[in-house]
Amino acid sequence: MLSLFQLNEASQAEFVALLDGVYEHSPWIAEQAHGRKPAGGFTSLAQLKLALAQVVTDAAHDQQLALVRAHPELAGKAMVSKTLTAESTHEQGKAGLTDCTPLEFEKIQQLNAAYNERFGFPFVMAVRGPRGLGLHRSEIIATFERRLGHPADYELAEALRNIHRIAEIRLNDKFGVEPTLGNLVWDWAEALAVHSDPGYAEQGQLTVTYLTDAHLACARQLQSWMLACGFDDVRIDAVGNVVGVYHGSDPSARRLLTGSHYDTVRNGGKYDGRLGILVPMACVRELHRAGRRLPYGLEVIGFAEEEGQRYKATFLGSGAVIGQFDGRWLDQQDADGVTMRQAMADAGLDPADIPLLRRDPAGYLGFVEVHIEQGPVLNELGLPLGVVTSINGSVRYLCEITGMASHAGTTPMNRRRDAAAATAEVILYLERRAGSVPDLVGTVGMLQVPAGSINVVPGRCLFSLDIRATTNEVRDECAADVLAEINAICERRGVAFKAEETMRAAAAPSDAAWQQRWERAVEALSLPVFRMPSGAGHDAMKLHEVMPQAMLFLRGLNAGISHNPLESITNDDTELCVQAFQRLLDQLATELQA
Amino acid sequence: MLSLFQLNEASQAEFVALLDGVYEHSPWIAEQAHGRKPAGGFTSLAQLKLALAQVVTDAAHDQQLALVRAHPELAGKAMVSKTLTAESTHEQGKAGLTDCTPLEFEKIQQLNAAYNERFGFPFVMAVRGPRGLGLHRSEIIATFERRLGHPADYELAEALRNIHRIAEIRLNDKFGVEPTLGNLVWDWAEALAVHSDPGYAEQGQLTVTYLTDAHLACARQLQSWMLACGFDDVRIDAVGNVVGVYHGSDPSARRLLTGSHYDTVRNGGKYDGRLGILVPMACVRELHRAGRRLPYGLEVIGFAEEEGQRYKATFLGSGAVIGQFDGRWLDQQDADGVTMRQAMADAGLDPADIPLLRRDPAGYLGFVEVHIEQGPVLNELGLPLGVVTSINGSVRYLCEITGMASHAGTTPMNRRRDAAAATAEVILYLERRAGSVPDLVGTVGMLQVPAGSINVVPGRCLFSLDIRATTNEVRDECAADVLAEINAICERRGVAFKAEETMRAAAAPSDAAWQQRWERAVEALSLPVFRMPSGAGHDAMKLHEVMPQAMLFLRGLNAGISHNPLESITNDDTELCVQAFQRLLDQLATELQA
Repeated sequence: MLSLFQLNEASQAEFVALLDGVYEHSPWIAEQAHGRKPAGGFTSLAQLKLALAQVVTDAAHDQQLALVRAHPELAGKAMVSKTLTAESTHEQGKAGLTDCTPLEFEKIQQLNAAYNERFGFPFVMAVRGPRGLGLHRSEIIATFERRLGHPADYELAEALRNIHRIAEIRLNDKFGVEPTLGNLVWDWAEALAVHSDPGYAEQGQLTVTYLTDAHLACARQLQSWMLACGFDDVRIDAVGNVVGVYHGSDPSARRLLTGSHYDTVRNGGKYDGRLGILVPMACVRELHRAGRRLPYGLEVIGFAEEEGQRYKATFLGSGAVIGQFDGRWLDQQDADGVTMRQAMADAGLDPADIPLLRRDPAGYLGFVEVHIEQGPVLNELGLPLGVVTSINGSVRYLCEITGMASHAGTTPMNRRRDAAAATAEVILYLERRAGSVPDLVGTVGMLQVPAGSINVVPGRCLFSLDIRATTNEVRDECAADVLAEINAICERRGVAFKAEETMRAAAAPSDAAWQQRWERAVEALSLPVFRMPSGAGHDAMKLHEVMPQAMLFLRGLNAGISHNPLESITNDDTELCVQAFQRLLDQLATELQA
Repeated sequence: MLSLFQLNEASQAEFVALLDGVYEHSPWIAEQAHGRKPAGGFTSLAQLKLALAQVVTDAAHDQQLALVRAHPELAGKAMVSKTLTAESTHEQGKAGLTDCTPLEFEKIQQLNAAYNERFGFPFVMAVRGPRGLGLHRSEIIATFERRLGHPADYELAEALRNIHRIAEIRLNDKFGVEPTLGNLVWDWAEALAVHSDPGYAEQGQLTVTYLTDAHLACARQLQSWMLACGFDDVRIDAVGNVVGVYHGSDPSARRLLTGSHYDTVRNGGKYDGRLGILVPMACVRELHRAGRRLPYGLEVIGFAEEEGQRYKATFLGSGAVIGQFDGRWLDQQDADGVTMRQAMADAGLDPADIPLLRRDPAGYLGFVEVHIEQGPVLNELGLPLGVVTSINGSVRYLCEITGMASHAGTTPMNRRRDAAAATAEVILYLERRAGSVPDLVGTVGMLQVPAGSINVVPGRCLFSLDIRATTNEVRDECAADVLAEINAICERRGVAFKAEETMRAAAAPSDAAWQQRWERAVEALSLPVFRMPSGAGHDAMKLHEVMPQAMLFLRGLNAGISHNPLESITNDDTELCVQAFQRLLDQLATELQA
């Protein structure tokens, strides 16, 4: 087994030799990484991995291409040639690729040819997958087909990310390291995902909406895991939240509150929300196994509802905890006409008890939440963790521009009132305006010329505006500028504009002290601190109204896609996430004891 | 009765007095028009009308507003006040507006209030209508409601156009002039429009598709009118064309060919195509009544099919005349599964005879076609006639830009692959590129982010391109530039682009000599010669392939809308159109006799 000590002591040549085979036929990567060794040597395997990856990121395009091309084709001719390294054979074997059916082999050959034709390099995939145990051939083929449709520059980056993942698994093997806590959380998420609503379960899709049988099964599963982890008190509350308390050394001590939601969107991912329940559960399990008590209590909540899928209300779980549960919601009906009141009664919940769920902020130190990023930033930067600076405030509008429909052949350019051309100006203005301020985003997600014809100048165009910023002020300034610009565009073009505001949510900036605790926790893992806003809403927004809060983001694979079955995380990243949470708990203990 | 001679001899004060009441309470218009009297005096009533209108066009915005505001409200309080001129009462009486039901009166009062509120001036409408006989109250109310939705500047211009039409009718009355040939053609068009296909007829909509009962009834009606006009030979040919020949003084003399189509689009207008049959019919009628023969024959064809509504082939009528009838079309089925072959058999037509319809170009002097403009240009410029320089060549594409869908909140602006933003650049580039060359037009008529969501960065955007120019070269240069720019935009943004060419039609520039004949005909009416391309396709495109051709456009009301029941022309404009055709015939006679 290799150790960091050994590596830190090694000469450059020894360093390269020790890391031989981690990056396929590319000793230049270890060679250059040796030059990047920190003064005190590498202090974590994660830091070494990042340094190696950074060499590749900084390399010339040709060198990156050469690295990708150094890899054998998947289950291809290379399988019987000399160029396949022992590691590759082993990995492809784990993925069962040496046992392809003739049809699958044929399919992969076709994909290899199409991929090479399209991108000019072989398809590289970390076939041992995000859990390191190997993917099924059908998953590999599906990923292959999907990646064939990527833009070329994106796909090169994706190939390099897969190469880094291959290297990560090889390094784990060399160092004899297993991300056991990451595996634990990853496997929990997998096990929790067996519960899915009718109509989705049959298609292998994950859908868990408020108070369905699958939802109740999830709650019971979380409750039983929490009990097994060693929580002192675990209960399902009146709104369906699963609440586990691990007392401090003094059971009456103030508590750190944490958690996230366990409901999902329709055909969603396995980690959105759930990760924020499972990661602190793993921490409590470790504390309990070590027989350790902190100088504060830890209260972990699996919030019953955040996504607003079954009823037209969102944040039911975290809302109830801050005393925001509107009794009128009980009369809302789902798509089958079942009222929320009825669903609660069927689940054995008593809405009369919901007001009792309201926490007294004086009893809490603050709220932290771990969440999958649901965006592409960490994935693209090659960073496992990001510290959230603010949950963005947002505003949304549905808009309509009305010009005059006219004949595309007979209406001269200077006599048109083209609603689509006016909208095109709006789209580009919004893109420029939002792009000019860091962490501000603006999107036209819906866009349509209703009943448009190829030979008719558009008389109407419908579109949406979505603007989000780290503060309400930045959001509102952008919205005001955009609306003013739209009016100017429409005035100049002689078209009419209507907008309806459909949503407005306040920004929730992270509490400075809590954000700093996350930053120190990340630093403690010898990882760079990367600060970023949260573009999506989270339960922390609700808790923000009553106590200080801060969030930690975990990298999502596949460009950070979320609300989608492709949502994915690696066991190694998850391990780092659990470790960061442990560091935060440790630091807080130290602070309170000081 | 007033005469041009009287007017030309008058002093300014007399001139103003003679034209008193033509423009409501606005003597300044006649005052200034007097200063614009040509050196030799006004030589046509149409010229005088244009001069008066031009004064208003050149007036300051405030003066234009004052002119509009000088008009009484429609059927409003003014009806019982002193401010309503005798003419207004007479006109509103003709339109039955003094006989409103209480409900209609109430409705008009509401519209008056809403209109005044929106535009700040009263609703002015030439209630005697395009035929001068008065509109029904329901038509007036429908127009009122429609105009309430206009952009403000467009509606002011529309109000002024109505004022000019009111003035035109008042001038006709003062001069004792009746546009009898215009009325004849207008009434023919109205009478022909009683035939409509089942399913449309019941709703008062005009639809005449190839070889339906309504279509056959139209053919028989045209045939009988042609016979009554004095054509020497009238027959319905093997493809359904109605062909009337008025021999020259020598029956074997070469002929001038003219005509247009009598089929319509679904729920179309009454003049598209038909005008080009009826106008030369009126000319032949006048020649025959005068017992006059020209030194050339005149062959007028009502083409059976141009619009391609029932079968997927277009220009069946004019195509057959130039020998372009594809026998395979006979096996095409309509929506009810009736083949073209069967439809022909049912109509008593023998497709075997179609090849015989091919004309020998040596027997013809050329082809001319009169057509409603189907565009806004003449209407906006206040000109009744336009001389066509070219039938534009066109090319169409259906396009798709593919980026990557991602979360609108979590994807930073600089990490997006936004298919809609890329498309927005395309739309604005096309608009600029087409707008930089006279008579070139480019349109994105279809535009859609499929299944777009307010909170998702568009991963796909579908749109159409339609590019038309007076020459194939100008069209192709534009198309090449646009496609190159799209590729550059997509390369820069890391998104993919696909385009499918769905249509390409060659330009048909007017023959110089024949275009000049139309120009001289227009000049002969003391009207300005306005040259313009045809953005839409016409039967002349087909004839263009075998003989010289040139077209004359007639102004359409309602922004020139066509393929729509709102398509409309005035009897006075139609009169000018017949007169222009007569002048062309006369000039050609003179040329041939010289």
